[in-house]
Amino acid sequence: MTTADSLDDSFHVFDTTLRDGAQREGINLTVADKLAIARHLDDFGVGFIEGGWPGANPRDTEFFSRVQKEVTFRNAQLVAFGATRRPGARAADDPQVRALVESGAPVVTLVAKSHDRHVELALRTTLDENVAMVRDTVSYLREQGRRVFVDCEHFFDGYRANPEYAKAVVRAASEAGADVVILCDTNGGMLPARIQAVVATVLADTGARLGIHAQDDTGCAVANTLAAVDAGATHVQCTANGYGERVGNANLFPVVAALELKYGKKVLPEGSLREMTRISHAIAEVVNLTPSTHQPYVGVSAFAHKAGLHASAIKVDPDLYQHIDPELVGNRIRMLVSDMAGRASIELKGKELGVELGDDRELVGRVVDRVKERELRGYTYEAADASFELLLREEAEGRARRYFRVESWRAIVEDRPDGTHANEATVKLWAKGERIVATAEGNGPVNALDRALRVGLERIYPQLAKLELLDYKVRILEGTHGTESTTRVLITTGDGAGSGEDWSTVGVAENVIAASWQALEDAYTYGLLRAGVEPTE
Amino acid sequence: MTTADSLDDSFHVFDTTLRDGAQREGINLTVADKLAIARHLDDFGVGFIEGGWPGANPRDTEFFSRVQKEVTFRNAQLVAFGATRRPGARAADDPQVRALVESGAPVVTLVAKSHDRHVELALRTTLDENVAMVRDTVSYLREQGRRVFVDCEHFFDGYRANPEYAKAVVRAASEAGADVVILCDTNGGMLPARIQAVVATVLADTGARLGIHAQDDTGCAVANTLAAVDAGATHVQCTANGYGERVGNANLFPVVAALELKYGKKVLPEGSLREMTRISHAIAEVVNLTPSTHQPYVGVSAFAHKAGLHASAIKVDPDLYQHIDPELVGNRIRMLVSDMAGRASIELKGKELGVELGDDRELVGRVVDRVKERELRGYTYEAADASFELLLREEAEGRARRYFRVESWRAIVEDRPDGTHANEATVKLWAKGERIVATAEGNGPVNALDRALRVGLERIYPQLAKLELLDYKVRILEGTHGTESTTRVLITTGDGAGSGEDWSTVGVAENVIAASWQALEDAYTYGLLRAGVEPTE
Repeated sequence: MTTADSLDDSFHVFDTTLRDGAQREGINLTVADKLAIARHLDDFGVGFIEGGWPGANPRDTEFFSRVQKEVTFRNAQLVAFGATRRPGARAADDPQVRALVESGAPVVTLVAKSHDRHVELALRTTLDENVAMVRDTVSYLREQGRRVFVDCEHFFDGYRANPEYAKAVVRAASEAGADVVILCDTNGGMLPARIQAVVATVLADTGARLGIHAQDDTGCAVANTLAAVDAGATHVQCTANGYGERVGNANLFPVVAALELKYGKKVLPEGSLREMTRISHAIAEVVNLTPSTHQPYVGVSAFAHKAGLHASAIKVDPDLYQHIDPELVGNRIRMLVSDMAGRASIELKGKELGVELGDDRELVGRVVDRVKERELRGYTYEAADASFELLLREEAEGRARRYFRVESWRAIVEDRPDGTHANEATVKLWAKGERIVATAEGNGPVNALDRALRVGLERIYPQLAKLELLDYKVRILEGTHGTESTTRVLITTGDGAGSGEDWSTVGVAENVIAASWQALEDAYTYGLLRAGVEPTE
Repeated sequence: MTTADSLDDSFHVFDTTLRDGAQREGINLTVADKLAIARHLDDFGVGFIEGGWPGANPRDTEFFSRVQKEVTFRNAQLVAFGATRRPGARAADDPQVRALVESGAPVVTLVAKSHDRHVELALRTTLDENVAMVRDTVSYLREQGRRVFVDCEHFFDGYRANPEYAKAVVRAASEAGADVVILCDTNGGMLPARIQAVVATVLADTGARLGIHAQDDTGCAVANTLAAVDAGATHVQCTANGYGERVGNANLFPVVAALELKYGKKVLPEGSLREMTRISHAIAEVVNLTPSTHQPYVGVSAFAHKAGLHASAIKVDPDLYQHIDPELVGNRIRMLVSDMAGRASIELKGKELGVELGDDRELVGRVVDRVKERELRGYTYEAADASFELLLREEAEGRARRYFRVESWRAIVEDRPDGTHANEATVKLWAKGERIVATAEGNGPVNALDRALRVGLERIYPQLAKLELLDYKVRILEGTHGTESTTRVLITTGDGAGSGEDWSTVGVAENVIAASWQALEDAYTYGLLRAGVEPTE
């Protein structure tokens, strides 16, 4: 098993998606989202996960409490972010500093001012007091047994304005016991040549261990991060998919890919890089942003080739036309006007699911056509394995697996004069030759439909009782006419046994209720198939 | 008037959006699109516009014919792209080369192989013949009075494999009369340090005038372009918004912004940079891609600030928190409202919206509290400006703006035995002392509610007739219990006048229909407020 020990401490991959990444416009993370992202980041193998600012808001405080109870990290250490003590007070008496200790995180990143004008205008204190604030707070946290990193905010702008003062802050942090001092290009205006020169000078002049935190305002955050490493930085702060304030932060994925594949530097546990594409997309899913199709290394277009000039040469030697083997990062080559990739992946998928497709090229072709036709209408099978397996079995076995037939259903949502809502659904079904009419209420129309379906079927299929809807996602496709768009619903269902073997189903329709119903039907059909029940219809 | 003469020939901004940019997955340009983009690029002030490959396809041939009749360039020169002659033939006899001359473009970019293995595997000729092909084709085009640039394809990979051969191709091109030899990182796998070293060496060894063409596969195309300039390249090839094959090309906008604002190098006509945001969005509009919100310099988020921490200091001195004045690139600062925000950002936002909060600290405190409380329940105001403004006005004016009161509503979705769906909604409202009951059908329950609301109100508020729902987004929050989660809906509404002034509203409830209803209520209330209608309730 990969453990945190498999990589030594000499180089740090530090992720701040949950803190700085959450500053991105359009991201609004719940505690559950933060826990899910932390699990993905740890799976990926980053060394440090900065979880937020405990004490600054109830959500971050709750995250620190829950993550330590609910998540066992295999690779990462948990980091709390906070500020140096207030001017004129003792660190031990500062409630914000105490909250960092009380968070229980073994590592603390302190943000410190290193730009003289920021000290005066934003902190409204003297330059000397700011240095004392850094020294005191680091010392106090070290006494409390915490490992301390110090983020020098606005370092590069500060260095231009007053290099001696900026370096004095680095020295104070390092001398007080900070393990790494991170030079931050907070406003993101730097270019690589300047980053490299400043990091080299500060390293020579202070001897402190240095890290880099780059923002992407010039479109150079990845290059700036690598330039700092070239100059001797041994700690890189990044965010998944480059999420962050304004344009964003240095993107974790191209940074680690460059270090591993271009520098030949081992910065992740063995095998992690091959999970990169999956992890990138999974995190995008949690924050509810469409994964960028054109993201370096992990975008679906990153290894896509338009047919033409070099199509034939790619067949001879693909390495002539790609800078790395896409499998190294869990991505794949795509030929944009060829269904060869489609056939191959369907054959592979059939093998993976244990559905025998044999050498039946016609059958595979039928599946390819049906998937293409449905994806054109908005279905996505990448995220709906169970719906895909049902489709595959239907084609392979010549008929759909059916446990019930739907005659009709109805959902009513009513907003009453007292402000409460009534949600009621009725389903009319046939199962084992019997006509079933069932009605149920719920906290919404989909929930009411779900309950009515169970109420109707549970006597005939008691296996349904333990199934549980775990996740429900809605995406509006082609939003050019508002509510007249197509709606896609993805539902994740579990067997309630905590086996961790969930399955996902998809529905697409002109409205959210009809799309949800399709995904529900597939979810229960697959649940029964999975439980070994024989189809009856 | 700005003319091409206002910038000398010592540095070239060369745009290849219409040729290499069009290789992007998802872009498919008509001749009219290409003409429109060419106009925008010339307005912006690039020195060269590569229009395509005349003779390679009818569209590009037609473009070259029409652009010279229909467009008068103020700044740019038109460039035709093509390949060196075929092996074993005369350049003058090669129809592909003749098509370049016949295109009428005063400048030709020739693509040449400079990687030995590509010569052997893709061209299937000898290394010497390839050099002869470069020399002959350049000489022939020079005799025909054309200015010639040579793109050395796969140069950096070729240089790694066989540096002497790669340089021999550069020399042959330069000696035959090519004005600029462009070193291309065709597979995009390079990092800035390597680019800089190779460009410096080739420049010293060949004495040719060099250009750079970078692809973004490592996320470093902008930095790679600048690294080449640092090493002495005086010609940069870019595409608008970084469009291009796979991940994309070096993005024109951050490249020229860095050169003008960071290097202090005049590469565009006076005043052009201030048009950059507009031009970037206009080109995205033509190619039918949503402008990237997080693009450096020109994205709508590029100067958006979220954190409360920064907001208080931004009031004191905005330059402390932005790397450039956004007006320099035609963009603007935006304050986002979120639960991380404090009083300062609410005050700034009030100012931006023209709602006077004055020095009423208690009022601002009330707004902050209400925003925090609502964001905890799942509302998000950073993406719902109109809902925020309604909230702000309600607190500032002591009462909500109301144009109607809702007694109750009901939505019914019915799946009928024939497989069709019926969606029907009824609303019961009061407006101007009158009780209104209205029913409508739609293609989904939200659409039916939207129509019922309009049917009911349009007689009293004819202004509602022209409002249009433009976008509809659903997000499930805290998805731990599937359909029992909270649902957030964001709706974007426009006034149908094509003014581009849309507004967004938010609703949060235990189910998607109730959440949509809230967002619809806010959308119409804001639409009436915006139209100057006096509240009646």
